[in-house]
Amino acid sequence: MKVVFVGAGNLATNLAVALQQAGHTILQVFSRTARSASALAERVGVPAVTDLSLLDHHADIYIVSITDSALLSFDYSVFPSQSLVVHTAGSIPMDVIPLQHRGVFYPMQTFSRQRIVPFDQIPLFIEAATDDDTRLLLQLAHTINHKVYQLTSADRLYLHLAAVFCSNFVNHCYTMSANILRQHGGLPFSVMLPLIDEVAAKVHSVSPREAQTGPAVRHDENVIRHHQALLADHPDLQQIYTILSDSIQKNS
Amino acid sequence: MKVVFVGAGNLATNLAVALQQAGHTILQVFSRTARSASALAERVGVPAVTDLSLLDHHADIYIVSITDSALLSFDYSVFPSQSLVVHTAGSIPMDVIPLQHRGVFYPMQTFSRQRIVPFDQIPLFIEAATDDDTRLLLQLAHTINHKVYQLTSADRLYLHLAAVFCSNFVNHCYTMSANILRQHGGLPFSVMLPLIDEVAAKVHSVSPREAQTGPAVRHDENVIRHHQALLADHPDLQQIYTILSDSIQKNS
Repeated sequence: MKVVFVGAGNLATNLAVALQQAGHTILQVFSRTARSASALAERVGVPAVTDLSLLDHHADIYIVSITDSALLSFDYSVFPSQSLVVHTAGSIPMDVIPLQHRGVFYPMQTFSRQRIVPFDQIPLFIEAATDDDTRLLLQLAHTINHKVYQLTSADRLYLHLAAVFCSNFVNHCYTMSANILRQHGGLPFSVMLPLIDEVAAKVHSVSPREAQTGPAVRHDENVIRHHQALLADHPDLQQIYTILSDSIQKNS
Repeated sequence: MKVVFVGAGNLATNLAVALQQAGHTILQVFSRTARSASALAERVGVPAVTDLSLLDHHADIYIVSITDSALLSFDYSVFPSQSLVVHTAGSIPMDVIPLQHRGVFYPMQTFSRQRIVPFDQIPLFIEAATDDDTRLLLQLAHTINHKVYQLTSADRLYLHLAAVFCSNFVNHCYTMSANILRQHGGLPFSVMLPLIDEVAAKVHSVSPREAQTGPAVRHDENVIRHHQALLADHPDLQQIYTILSDSIQKNS
């Protein structure tokens, strides 16, 4: 298929590389920022534009991969009416695109420009307003991945919320852990990596509820009180420690 | 070295297997529970005892791997005075063992009986009361691992606290995510695994603070408010969502 990218961020970069490797033709990359437009355009060897009036009108699919707030104020009248226009956001409804041929192509992963994530590992959640467009999106998605799910905008919101817990909040737990380590004992954060890897690996074979370990699920109130005392100078961390420990106990 | 295990839980099982593979001799396994004593003893092919009066007195090291509360009330007078007695707990001071030859051998990992974790990947934190015993422990530790750190009881407490954030709290984030998924849309938790793996993989190469993504660090208040509204029927989760999002913003 012929694809134009609108937006050149981390997700667009990873997706464009995957689509090109699967044999699709990237016609053009648009971004308001010349530097990011060029960076992605050079990576896939296609023209970059920063002016929407120069948008290529021959694509089958326009993939709009911009920030959530930019999606809300975008001028969708720039797209040719016969082409399918999709966004890639987890938490924005499909109908933010006021066109007949609209859809969503949401790869659920955390993307960084520095790391190319193999797209065949990333579940894709798709939605379109018509059956034909749904078929088109399914076809496109299956060329880069076999884990493709159709999901309504309403259910995608909950999926995205669940993903915030599994990624953003998990990563913040790592940050809080690194802060504690840095302030006491001077050990490098790398000592945590085997533990981090095993915690992630474990839930591949048992449910997270069954995998739970630690003082909270053991109701080891001595250790819990001791930890809370160690955090006396960090009231924010202490509150988080207490609330998460309580929540573990309620769930067990 | 000749080793006796007191306690036959997940950590003891994994450690006994690793020590035996490294060429050490497990003399005996003690556990108050006949079933767990036998399970580990059979696994390493040695006698099991459930009566402390039958403890083998010829070990160089006694590894006491029992619950934190059991460590506090254990009768340490059962051990021969010339042998080194160590516990394996992250949050209990070395001096809980009222003997001259006392120490700590703390492998920082989350252990499950079903999963044997390769010990050469697990950082070991050791402490002993005398230089000779420190050397003995270092020697033992290095036969199964190269990541060996000497750490005081005081610093080990903070290490253990940091580990609670990286493992127990992370796993609980997975549980909360699974609960949200189960209640909405009916997607299997396995759709989260690629995300979980990437979040863990990312902090091998960038600091968790730099790796942070999501609505909170982007100050995307629209999405945050929307997520909070989705959790209106789950006040506990809503509170955790709000507190963790605030904490991400304060740290960024």
